[in-house]
Amino acid sequence: MRNKKINIAVTGLLLLTGLVLADDVTVDHDIIPVELADNAVLLRERALLDNLSVELVESLTTEVGPRRVGTAGDERAIAWAEAKFKELGFDRVWTEEVPVEHGWIRGEASAEIVSPYPHNIVLTALGYSVGTNGDLVGEIVEFADFEALEAVLEGDSLQGKIAFVSYSMADYVPEPGERRMAGYGKGTRARGAGHVAAAKRGAAAIIIRSVGTDNNRVGHTGSGFGYVDDVKRIPAAAVSAPDAILIQNMLRRGEPVVMKLNMTAEITGPVKGANVIGEITGRSDADNFLVLGAHLDSWDEGTGAIDDGAGVGSMVAAAAFIGQMEQRPKRSIRVLLFAAEEIGLVGARAYYADHEDDLEHHVLGAEVDGGGGRAHTLISGVGEASVPLVREMHKLVAPLGIAWSDANDATGASDMSVLGRAGMPALNSCKIRTTTSTTTTHQTTRSTRLFPKTCAT
Amino acid sequence: MRNKKINIAVTGLLLLTGLVLADDVTVDHDIIPVELADNAVLLRERALLDNLSVELVESLTTEVGPRRVGTAGDERAIAWAEAKFKELGFDRVWTEEVPVEHGWIRGEASAEIVSPYPHNIVLTALGYSVGTNGDLVGEIVEFADFEALEAVLEGDSLQGKIAFVSYSMADYVPEPGERRMAGYGKGTRARGAGHVAAAKRGAAAIIIRSVGTDNNRVGHTGSGFGYVDDVKRIPAAAVSAPDAILIQNMLRRGEPVVMKLNMTAEITGPVKGANVIGEITGRSDADNFLVLGAHLDSWDEGTGAIDDGAGVGSMVAAAAFIGQMEQRPKRSIRVLLFAAEEIGLVGARAYYADHEDDLEHHVLGAEVDGGGGRAHTLISGVGEASVPLVREMHKLVAPLGIAWSDANDATGASDMSVLGRAGMPALNSCKIRTTTSTTTTHQTTRSTRLFPKTCAT
Repeated sequence: MRNKKINIAVTGLLLLTGLVLADDVTVDHDIIPVELADNAVLLRERALLDNLSVELVESLTTEVGPRRVGTAGDERAIAWAEAKFKELGFDRVWTEEVPVEHGWIRGEASAEIVSPYPHNIVLTALGYSVGTNGDLVGEIVEFADFEALEAVLEGDSLQGKIAFVSYSMADYVPEPGERRMAGYGKGTRARGAGHVAAAKRGAAAIIIRSVGTDNNRVGHTGSGFGYVDDVKRIPAAAVSAPDAILIQNMLRRGEPVVMKLNMTAEITGPVKGANVIGEITGRSDADNFLVLGAHLDSWDEGTGAIDDGAGVGSMVAAAAFIGQMEQRPKRSIRVLLFAAEEIGLVGARAYYADHEDDLEHHVLGAEVDGGGGRAHTLISGVGEASVPLVREMHKLVAPLGIAWSDANDATGASDMSVLGRAGMPALNSCKIRTTTSTTTTHQTTRSTRLFPKTCAT
Repeated sequence: MRNKKINIAVTGLLLLTGLVLADDVTVDHDIIPVELADNAVLLRERALLDNLSVELVESLTTEVGPRRVGTAGDERAIAWAEAKFKELGFDRVWTEEVPVEHGWIRGEASAEIVSPYPHNIVLTALGYSVGTNGDLVGEIVEFADFEALEAVLEGDSLQGKIAFVSYSMADYVPEPGERRMAGYGKGTRARGAGHVAAAKRGAAAIIIRSVGTDNNRVGHTGSGFGYVDDVKRIPAAAVSAPDAILIQNMLRRGEPVVMKLNMTAEITGPVKGANVIGEITGRSDADNFLVLGAHLDSWDEGTGAIDDGAGVGSMVAAAAFIGQMEQRPKRSIRVLLFAAEEIGLVGARAYYADHEDDLEHHVLGAEVDGGGGRAHTLISGVGEASVPLVREMHKLVAPLGIAWSDANDATGASDMSVLGRAGMPALNSCKIRTTTSTTTTHQTTRSTRLFPKTCAT
C-alpha cells in the first residue's frame, strides 16, 4: 500500500456526518491551525442549520424516482445530477460513460400457492433473473439458509422443485465481534448465488425470504450476480416476510406445498450508464483531491431515497457547502456519483479502470451508502503518520456524538472500497442503520437500530 | 334501557384480556364467593400458560387466509369455524345465514403519474368501488381532509378531476379527551363517503391516502359504504403513505399533476355469508348466556390475522377453556363469529334482527376487534346495581396490568355494539393498538402504541 496522504479539507465531510448540536472541544493547534479549526466549526454549524441534503433527496426521489441502470429513470437521474452540480456552483461537471454488459426488464411477477391451501403470494423478481416463460408449477422444498442448500449433493435431487431459502435476517443474532451487517450478508449469499446452487441440484426455480427486516407484504429485490455457463438459468424471486412465514406454516404440516410462479423478467443486451462527477477546484493544489462518493442508481421498486439518495444528498451538500465558503480549500473536492452500484459496483470498477494511473491524486475518499441515519463512529484508513491528524479532526465532530475507532482499517464504503482497496486513503463513518427496504421512499422511515454499537468496513 | 344483569362466568373473558403474570389481590368474598374466585384464578393461569388463541389464528390464517364475504375464502372460513368449535368440545354449533345485497370483485388496480414526473403508483381499490372501465386520466386536486372536500360547492368545479384526500392518520394528534381512534375515524370519513362527495362536485375518481400508520408501499383497503342514487358512481382507491407524500411533493411544485388509473373492480349481485355460533351449555341456567364476539370475515389483501383473527382466537379459546373446566358455568357461553363486519356490521345486524325477541337472554356481551395487543383498561356498561360486582371481578384481572374505568358506558366493540346499543349489558376492554394494516398476516407485528392511555366505546 502506498504512503497515505491526507487533506485537511476532509473536515467538510466529517462535519456532515452527524446532526447533534453540542459544545466544541479543544483541538491541538500545533496539528490543526486555529484558523482552519475555526473554519471547520463554521462549516459544521452551517451544515447543521441547512436542509440542503434532504432537499436534494426530495428532488431526486420526486423528479426522477427509480433509476436502475439502463432505464429511462437512470438517464433522467444523470441529467438531474449534472444540473444540480451546476446549480450549486461546482466548478467542473462531467460524466464518464459506464458500459454495462446486460440490461434487464423487470416485467410482471405473480405467484400463488396451489395446494394444500390456496393463497396469493406477493412475488418480487430478483434483479437480472430470467422469466418463467409462462406458468411454472413445482413443489416447494425449504432450506434454512444458503449453506443448507449447498449441503445437498449436486445432481437431480431437486428435479422440478422450487427451492425456498427461508433464512430470516430479522431473526439473526450476530456473534460477538461480527460485523453489524452480518445478518444481511448471510442473507445475500442465497440472493447472490442461490439460483446457481439450486439449478446445480435440478431445481426449476428458487425463491428466498426477502433480505430485510420489514414485516410488511412487500418483497425486497436486489440482485443475483449473474448466471454461470453450463448451469441452467432458473428464475429467482423474493417473497415478503409474512408470505415466507405463511409458506413455512404450511410446510410444517407435512403435506406437499405446491406453488405456481409467473414472471416475465428478461435479460437484454448491453446498456450504458454514467458516473457523474462534480468538482470544487482547490485554491493552490487543485490537481489533488478529496473524493466523496455515493451511487446514483437505485433499485426500481421504490424511489431510492435511502439507497442511495441519502448518500447523494449528503455528499453533494457537503461539497457544495465547502465550495460556498469564503476561502476555497487548498485541494479540490471531487464528488463521484457512481453508476450501477446495485449490480456489483460496475461504475466504481469502470472509474478505477480509467483512473488507476492517477490514483495518487485521490488523497482521501469516503462514501455514504448506509442511509440517512446518524453517524456514531469514525474509522480512518490512512498511513500511520496521518492518524494523529485525523484524530484531531475527529475532535471537531466528536461533539456531534461521534466516537473514534482505533482500527484504522477503513477502505471506504461500497463503490469507494474499490479505490480504498487499491491503496487510496479512506474514511468510514458508521451509521445507525435505517431500514433496508428498497420500497421506502422517504427520509421519515423508522430506524431499525440493529447493531448500532459496532461497525466495520 | 332494560335492567342489566350480569353473569359471573364473564370472568373467563376477563382472564383472557391480559398476559402479565402477577400477584393476586383480595376479592370481597361477600360479592364473589371464595370457590368462584379460586376457579377464576385457575382459569386465568391456564389461559396465561396456554397458546390456544395464537394457534387458532395461525390455523385460520394458514389454512384459510383472506375471507371477504361472498368469496371462496369466506366459505372455507365458515367450515373452518364449525370444525374448530366441534374439535374444541363446544356443545352446540350452528350457522345462521346472512344475506348480503352485493358481492364485489376486487380485480386489478394500477396507476401512474403521467406528468410532470412519470412514476408508477401502487393503487388499492377501496372495497365496493366500481372500476374505471379502461384507463381513466385526470388532473389531481388535493384536499387536506374530507371536510375540505365538502367545503367545495356542489356542481362541476371538479369536473374530470381526480380528487385526492391527503389526510394522514399517522400525523393526527388527538385533542384532549378525544377517543383513541379519533385519527382513524377522521380518515375513514373520506374512505366511507369521499366517493359520493367528490362525485357531487363532478370528480371522475377519488383517491385517498391509506387510513393507517404504516410507512410501507402497500395500500390500505377498507370500504366505502355504498353509492347513492342519482349521484354518479366514481371509482375510489387508496394510495400508500409514501406514494401519497410523493404526489404531495409534486403538487407543491405548482404544476398540474396528471394521473392515470386503471381498476377492474366490479360490484356483483347478492351473496351469502353466515354467522357461525358455538355454545358451551350452562349447568343450571342454560337459556341465559354470556356472548363473546369477533368477526370471521376479513379484507382480502392479507390473511386477516389482526383484523379479526386475533378476536376469533381470543374468544374461541376463552370459551373453550371455560368449557374444559371441571364444573360447567351456571349459564351458557355463546361465541358469535359474525359475518360481513367489514362492510358495515351486516352479520351483526342480521343476528339482531333474528334475535331481538330473545335479547334478554344475552346477559352480557363483549367483543375483541382491536388486534392482539395487551388490554390496559376494562370498562363496564351494566346496570348500576351490577357495577360493584364487576368491580370485584376486575380485581381478578387487575394483576395483569388492567386498569378500571368508572365510565360504565360500554356497549361492546364492533358487531357487539349493535346488541349493546339495543340494551344488552356489555364490557369493553381497551387495548394497546396494533397496526391497522390489512396486509399484516402475523401476530409478530409491531405495536404502533398510539393513544394507549385513553379508550372509549
